[in-house]
Amino acid sequence: MKIASVTIDNKNHLALYREGKLALLDDYGIKATSVAELSHDDFAKLKDINRFQDYTFSYNSIIDQKSSLLCIGLNYKSHVSEHAGGKIPETPVVFSKANNAFTGNHSIVQTGNGMHMDYEGELCVMIGKTARNVGEANALNYVLGYFIGNDVSSRLMQYKTTQFFLGKSFDNFYPNGPYISIGEINDPQNLTIQTRVNGELRQDSNTGLMIFPVNKLISYISQFMTLRPGDCISTGTPAGVIMGMPESNQKWLGKGDKVEVQITGLGKLETTFE
Amino acid sequence: MKIASVTIDNKNHLALYREGKLALLDDYGIKATSVAELSHDDFAKLKDINRFQDYTFSYNSIIDQKSSLLCIGLNYKSHVSEHAGGKIPETPVVFSKANNAFTGNHSIVQTGNGMHMDYEGELCVMIGKTARNVGEANALNYVLGYFIGNDVSSRLMQYKTTQFFLGKSFDNFYPNGPYISIGEINDPQNLTIQTRVNGELRQDSNTGLMIFPVNKLISYISQFMTLRPGDCISTGTPAGVIMGMPESNQKWLGKGDKVEVQITGLGKLETTFE
Repeated sequence: MKIASVTIDNKNHLALYREGKLALLDDYGIKATSVAELSHDDFAKLKDINRFQDYTFSYNSIIDQKSSLLCIGLNYKSHVSEHAGGKIPETPVVFSKANNAFTGNHSIVQTGNGMHMDYEGELCVMIGKTARNVGEANALNYVLGYFIGNDVSSRLMQYKTTQFFLGKSFDNFYPNGPYISIGEINDPQNLTIQTRVNGELRQDSNTGLMIFPVNKLISYISQFMTLRPGDCISTGTPAGVIMGMPESNQKWLGKGDKVEVQITGLGKLETTFE
Repeated sequence: MKIASVTIDNKNHLALYREGKLALLDDYGIKATSVAELSHDDFAKLKDINRFQDYTFSYNSIIDQKSSLLCIGLNYKSHVSEHAGGKIPETPVVFSKANNAFTGNHSIVQTGNGMHMDYEGELCVMIGKTARNVGEANALNYVLGYFIGNDVSSRLMQYKTTQFFLGKSFDNFYPNGPYISIGEINDPQNLTIQTRVNGELRQDSNTGLMIFPVNKLISYISQFMTLRPGDCISTGTPAGVIMGMPESNQKWLGKGDKVEVQITGLGKLETTFE
C-alpha cells in the first residue's frame, strides 16, 4: 500500500494513495495524523479500504515533526569520488537534518544568495518498530516503508565548518514523498534512482551500489541509539550532484529550477525552487 | 519563574518550581504538556500561582520531543585548546543531538563498552518566539529561558568519522534541567558554570568566556533556519573535559560515576552513570 500525507482545503489528512486517487483515513475512523502514529489496529483497517476518489490536494512531509531524520554521507562509491579526498568510509558517516527541513512534494525551497544550493536524490527508510541492537540479518523487519527524499544542501554552509548540519537544515531542505510505500518493496537494494533538473538527467544509479545497504545501516545505528517508529534514515546519494561537476560547470540551483527524483516503485518527488 | 517537567506517580506534569516545592500547572487548568507548548494565556495564569506543595517526583527533559536541539562546538577558547588543532572557529560550529538523547535530571545514562564516555556541562537556551533573520541587538528577545544541559559524548564515536552526530546521540546523552528559568537571567554572559565528577571540580568557568555569546548564536543560526518556540541551543562547554586531559589521566565515565553541572541561578543537574 501507499500512504500520503496531504492537505485538502487547508485540512491535513493521511490518505491511502492509488494511481492519483485518495481514500482519506479519517473517513474510516483512523485518528492518526502522521504515518508514525498509525497503530496495528489502524493498519488492519487499511486492508479493507477500496474506495478511492479524486481530490485537489497538496502533499505534506511523510516524516513527522517529532521523528529523527538521520542522513548517511558518502554511501555510494560514485559519489565519494566527487568529494575532495574521496576515501571510501569504513563506517557509515551519520549526520542529521532538523525537522524544519521536512516538507512535502511540490514544495518551494528557499534559495539563499550565494549559498551554493545543490540536490541529492535519496532513498529514505522509515522505521516501523523500536530498533535497538538489531542484527543485520533481521534489520529489514524493522522497516515500515520506503519513500523518496531530496537532501537539499547549501554547499557553502555544509563546508564552512567540519559539521554538515547547518548547511543541510535550512527551512524546507528535505522535501520528501510523494507517499510512503509499505510492504511493496521486497529488495531495497535493487531500485533505479534518478534525478533530473529541468528535465536533464543528472543522477542515474541503482540502490544496489550503496556502500552500506539499508540492513547494515539500521543494524549499525541501532548499536548506539534507539531507532523509534517514525524515525527515518536517508541512505545517501549517488554521483551526479552539482558539487561533483568541474567548477566551470557548477550552476547552483536557483529561481525556477525544477528538481525531480524518481525511484522504482516510489513515484516522483518534484521540487521547484524560488 | 522556574518551570520543571516532572513525573509523580507515573503521571507527567509541568510544574512551577520554588525551593524544592511544586505547583502543578494542570491544577490551574493549564493543558500544555511541555514548556514549548505554554501559551501567552498560560503564562498570564502562572503569575497568580503562589501555593507550592511537597511532592515525591522525578525530573523529565525540559526539551520537547518535537523540538530541535542545536549544539555549538568549540565555543570557549579554553576548550578549543583541548582539541587537536586548537584553532578558534571563525563561525559557530553547529551540530545536533537526536531527541532520544533528551532526558531529565538524575537520569541514568548508558555506558557502552570502550565508548570513551565524557561530560560537557553547558548553558542551554530555549527559544520562545519564532526567530528568522534576527539581528544580534534584538536576539535575546527571542529567548524563553535558560537551563543546564550535559552534552554527554562518546569520544570514540564522535571522532570515528568527520560528523559528531552519532557520538552525541546515544540514548539519554542530553540530560537537561532540573528546571528552566524564565525572566530571571538578565545577562546570560555572566554566569558561573561548574562541573563536578564524584565531587571533584572538573570544569570551572564563566559564560562570559564564550567565543560566540547567546545573542550572536541566535542571530547567526536564524539567518539559515527558522528557530521555533521550544527549539534549544546548547552553547558549548568550557575546558575541563576528560578528552582534554593527558592520555595517562583519561579515566572515562563509567558505572557509578556522578556528574553534577551547576550554573548560577539554574540549580544543579545531576546524572549518575551505570
